[in-house]
Amino acid sequence: MLESKISRIQRDIETMAQYTATPGNGMTRLSFTEEDRKTRAYICSEMGKAGLHVYTDAAGSICGRRDGVGEGAPIVMIGSHFDSVKNGGNFDGPAGVAAALEVARILHENNISTENPIEFVAMIEEEGTRFGAGLYGSRAMAGQVSNNEIKTFRDANGISLEKALQDFGLDPLKVKDAVRNPEDLKAFIELHIEQGPVLESETLDAGFVSTIVGITRFDIEIEGRADHAGTTPMHMRKDALLASLEVAKTVHDVAYAKGEGTVGTVGIMQIYPGGANIVPGKAFFTVDIRSVEQRNIEDIVKEMKKTLELVSARMGVSVHMERKISVPPIHLDKKIRGIFEQEANHRGISYRTMVSGAGHDAMIMASLTRVGLLFVPSKGGRSHCPEEWTDYEQLKKGVDIALGTILKLAEANI
Amino acid sequence: MLESKISRIQRDIETMAQYTATPGNGMTRLSFTEEDRKTRAYICSEMGKAGLHVYTDAAGSICGRRDGVGEGAPIVMIGSHFDSVKNGGNFDGPAGVAAALEVARILHENNISTENPIEFVAMIEEEGTRFGAGLYGSRAMAGQVSNNEIKTFRDANGISLEKALQDFGLDPLKVKDAVRNPEDLKAFIELHIEQGPVLESETLDAGFVSTIVGITRFDIEIEGRADHAGTTPMHMRKDALLASLEVAKTVHDVAYAKGEGTVGTVGIMQIYPGGANIVPGKAFFTVDIRSVEQRNIEDIVKEMKKTLELVSARMGVSVHMERKISVPPIHLDKKIRGIFEQEANHRGISYRTMVSGAGHDAMIMASLTRVGLLFVPSKGGRSHCPEEWTDYEQLKKGVDIALGTILKLAEANI
Repeated sequence: MLESKISRIQRDIETMAQYTATPGNGMTRLSFTEEDRKTRAYICSEMGKAGLHVYTDAAGSICGRRDGVGEGAPIVMIGSHFDSVKNGGNFDGPAGVAAALEVARILHENNISTENPIEFVAMIEEEGTRFGAGLYGSRAMAGQVSNNEIKTFRDANGISLEKALQDFGLDPLKVKDAVRNPEDLKAFIELHIEQGPVLESETLDAGFVSTIVGITRFDIEIEGRADHAGTTPMHMRKDALLASLEVAKTVHDVAYAKGEGTVGTVGIMQIYPGGANIVPGKAFFTVDIRSVEQRNIEDIVKEMKKTLELVSARMGVSVHMERKISVPPIHLDKKIRGIFEQEANHRGISYRTMVSGAGHDAMIMASLTRVGLLFVPSKGGRSHCPEEWTDYEQLKKGVDIALGTILKLAEANI
Repeated sequence: MLESKISRIQRDIETMAQYTATPGNGMTRLSFTEEDRKTRAYICSEMGKAGLHVYTDAAGSICGRRDGVGEGAPIVMIGSHFDSVKNGGNFDGPAGVAAALEVARILHENNISTENPIEFVAMIEEEGTRFGAGLYGSRAMAGQVSNNEIKTFRDANGISLEKALQDFGLDPLKVKDAVRNPEDLKAFIELHIEQGPVLESETLDAGFVSTIVGITRFDIEIEGRADHAGTTPMHMRKDALLASLEVAKTVHDVAYAKGEGTVGTVGIMQIYPGGANIVPGKAFFTVDIRSVEQRNIEDIVKEMKKTLELVSARMGVSVHMERKISVPPIHLDKKIRGIFEQEANHRGISYRTMVSGAGHDAMIMASLTRVGLLFVPSKGGRSHCPEEWTDYEQLKKGVDIALGTILKLAEANI
């Protein structure tokens, strides 16, 4: 009896899940490690069995190529990443790699020929867990990895990206050879887990991403004065925590009022000196703002600054703020989203259009070609933890949509 | 030429200031250490020169006794502590020890005889820096040090109080011999730095404490849910920091509204997991409430609990709270305060009645006898830091008030 498609996907996920540096404590697969090598061997082997021409690009991502019949036709690409965060789950990344493998297997076993060539990719260092700067595999394709990054970015043990590449048999001077020419590409499709609770809470099987939110992040430091909590009357204090609270509340309230597609979060809050009987003299916190519209982000920033000025004037605290990240929203391809919808309707798979609140390789690939990003549900909205889960039946539905979409993209004049 | 009284006080402070474990980085004088021994030697020597009968009580505090002429008359006591916090200043504690030494010297050099005996004391482990439970010297006099504390309380190196006492030549089994009989005491006077900004901001030389505030302290833990800050819509979050902010704001606002003599502080705030892109799943914070009236404290606690219930219901977070400290306000002796005022008026020293927002040995001694607590100004309101400072002229004025008060208490039928 033939292995069912769901079982094959499950086998992919479960096999890759074995290669973790933290067995029993979630998935820890850092780039260019022993766990990477073992996972890579499995992916290459599966690609080979699916009749693909397998190679490692100059940055270290795995590519499996399937020729098309059209002479010089641009490539349709599908894939995701196979590195992980520390103590993460088995699906963030590998779900999309398994989807690509399964699509390749189906095309192969059905002897399907396509006009366009198709490349199945498994990217590395998307999370940035080892070297600190994520989206490395896709940035290498987009020409966004600098020599400076290769030479100076280091892992927790002080090993540079350059050294890690060399030890892995890759030439650090040739990373730029991984760059793709936009003219050589027709489209990029990524299947990824949602990493949020929306699909599950609406009992939907798939989400088609219209926009990857823009991200702005600030580091903010408020300096008041540390005083004895018993002997300093309320009206004589410069309480850095109280000042910070007003800022956090503004960010939250304004983001909330903007409605779906906009979020604002204070995720780090450190106060000093941090004694139960000491009025907080200094507070450090981060503000992370994301939205489908840059003007929403700027509105929140404006209100946040207004609050900072108000508390600074009223409480006599000083404020230092720095914008550490500023990435604009990326709007994905409408036509590909239309194909996702046709394929889902055709198969009776429930879906919705949605926003991606997290960055993905798809975001970078959008600078090279038209991109479609397809989400499958995350149980409990959980991700980046050992509990991360997507039912294989749902993953299979996502693969079906991806397969149909790839076939359309690699065939017609779209 | 005779050394002036101000110079003598300055010499006391500066000599004791040499004995720090952190030279150049503030005063660190932990109990029963080398720094303690050196300071102790200086205090005992000065006491001896002032004609006192010097002894160490069974708990380790230094006492210098001056007999009175009245047979079996109860003791008038004056003093403060000589241990410090880590990296503290030169005045918190030693100011009151120097005051006691100076009063003893003046009585001695003027051959003044008094009806009542006077004891000059330098207490230890008031800060609780070494063994974690403060006010040890005065608690030993009040019979509030248990055998359990002696056996189980340990310093940062795991050395028990018991072992430290033995190494210092004291018998841990005899600590209870330090207990004073209320009938043997007539009054206790403590001079201490204010540790707050009130006297300086009102350009006053002295503060006479009517009440030592009651202190209630809570540890509060709010458990929400850690979620991805990008993928979790605002309305689906259980943000533990936001919930905590509302509680902190309630504590602050209600305490503020109660007016002078009541304060509320969130001095520790820790959030988990603490990532810029993660919605805070858990928050731990302390709430420290102090007031001259217990009902003010309970009002704030009530409002705080109300807010906790509201946020718990609205945001779906769970709350765990624990009252860790609950000490009622201590009202000090009105008659002694009246003497402070007479002595200040007589000398043209400016003063006000005030509240002590911090605990002191005087608080414990109030369970044994009538107590007067006298504050001198703290520059910038600073304390527990190397910058801690009181002008010697101001300290001298405090000593003058203490001297006059001691004379009255040790003479008349008050």
